Amino acid sequence: MALSYSLQATIPYDMADLNSLVRLPQLMALVMQVSGLHSVEIDMADDKILKEFGLVWIISDHTIKIKRLPHFLETVTIKTQPLFHNRYFCYREYQVFDQEGQEIVNMVTNFMLMDFESRKVQSVVPEIVEAFQSEFQKTIRRGPKFKNLEEAKGREFSVRYYDLDMNGHVNNGKYLEWIYESLGSDFLSSHTPTSLYIKYNREVMADSVVDSQVELVDLVSHHEIHSDGVVNAQAQIEWQPLEK
Amino acid sequence: MALSYSLQATIPYDMADLNSLVRLPQLMALVMQVSGLHSVEIDMADDKILKEFGLVWIISDHTIKIKRLPHFLETVTIKTQPLFHNRYFCYREYQVFDQEGQEIVNMVTNFMLMDFESRKVQSVVPEIVEAFQSEFQKTIRRGPKFKNLEEAKGREFSVRYYDLDMNGHVNNGKYLEWIYESLGSDFLSSHTPTSLYIKYNREVMADSVVDSQVELVDLVSHHEIHSDGVVNAQAQIEWQPLEK
Repeated sequence: MALSYSLQATIPYDMADLNSLVRLPQLMALVMQVSGLHSVEIDMADDKILKEFGLVWIISDHTIKIKRLPHFLETVTIKTQPLFHNRYFCYREYQVFDQEGQEIVNMVTNFMLMDFESRKVQSVVPEIVEAFQSEFQKTIRRGPKFKNLEEAKGREFSVRYYDLDMNGHVNNGKYLEWIYESLGSDFLSSHTPTSLYIKYNREVMADSVVDSQVELVDLVSHHEIHSDGVVNAQAQIEWQPLEK
Repeated sequence: MALSYSLQATIPYDMADLNSLVRLPQLMALVMQVSGLHSVEIDMADDKILKEFGLVWIISDHTIKIKRLPHFLETVTIKTQPLFHNRYFCYREYQVFDQEGQEIVNMVTNFMLMDFESRKVQSVVPEIVEAFQSEFQKTIRRGPKFKNLEEAKGREFSVRYYDLDMNGHVNNGKYLEWIYESLGSDFLSSHTPTSLYIKYNREVMADSVVDSQVELVDLVSHHEIHSDGVVNAQAQIEWQPLEK
């Protein structure tokens, strides 16, 4: 059984949206901080992986199921644990529990190790996955097949200086922000997501203008992020009307 | 002597800019989380102030002195303490120390209490400031007088859905991001701030387009954020070339 790590957190003011619910991109950043703390605790922190192996974690995709989003001032318990790994992918689960112990959000994130210098994906390093007591499985998890967009609407965003991380690459969290913003504030303020699958294909470069395309079919939104002629990310989100 | 609160933090990847230095808006958010924890520890957290008094903290201005910005993976100690209060203003100091105990960043933030319903500023509540052991002083701290902009350049930003907080108001941290972005990536990637004074005058409303105006005189940048015919915020930043 893989080592797990838990932390309590209370949703602060600046993580809450107009409906007093947590903003999903910020919840994702928060739960991923918990796996950062987990890595520190077992002495396999990001800086050690960089210094000793020359590697950094990158994310291929997230699969999220949402029973309900935590609200402003709600105290939740965030638990994370590795699920398993295969030759290239390390799957990690994040669970958000409410005070009654009900799981309200579940996220499975697919990590890969990239060589910091060459920017190429490397196969899993035994010493790293052993530290987390992750188990090897041959399985590869696959998300839903993305719909081809036929009648998409687009909204353009210029990449800002502060969208870039240390390596001049656009921070992962920005993609989901662009995806959300494409839906417009009327839709966002009256709907809440029940599931989300996002896959990162290719990094957006500095100075790019991205086109965040969306096609809404019933209560499923289909998304593509384009820039410089390539598809950088794809996502599919299921929504339900928000009961106020 | 007012109660202080300290916390160690290590600058993670997603807080670092292209030069591997912490992004100032995110450092400000981090140190303010420390005062949030301080409030919880002494049982005068934001939610208690809202529930028992119907009040929320708002920020009038920040004065920041920067010897150097912490870098990626640097471990710093963040210390915060109330300085003093007068009838309306509560001044709080935030200090960032490096591993050798040198103060590298100092921020003084001017807080006010606002009635959550009426959105009007209230005078200081004794029970709240006493919990922090803050002392009364008649002094009012004043920042530098802002320069009238004469040859300003502007860059426009549409307010996004996720720029808004629970009350439909633009989050404080966004102003500094708009201010920074007005300077352009060539300037930002080759300069580092040594001091910053930012004053919030009037909230930016949802659906606004803000004009972030800047006039750079030698190595001092003068900023105004305009929207809907009013000046929402002003700032003055001193810079020095970044030694790489």
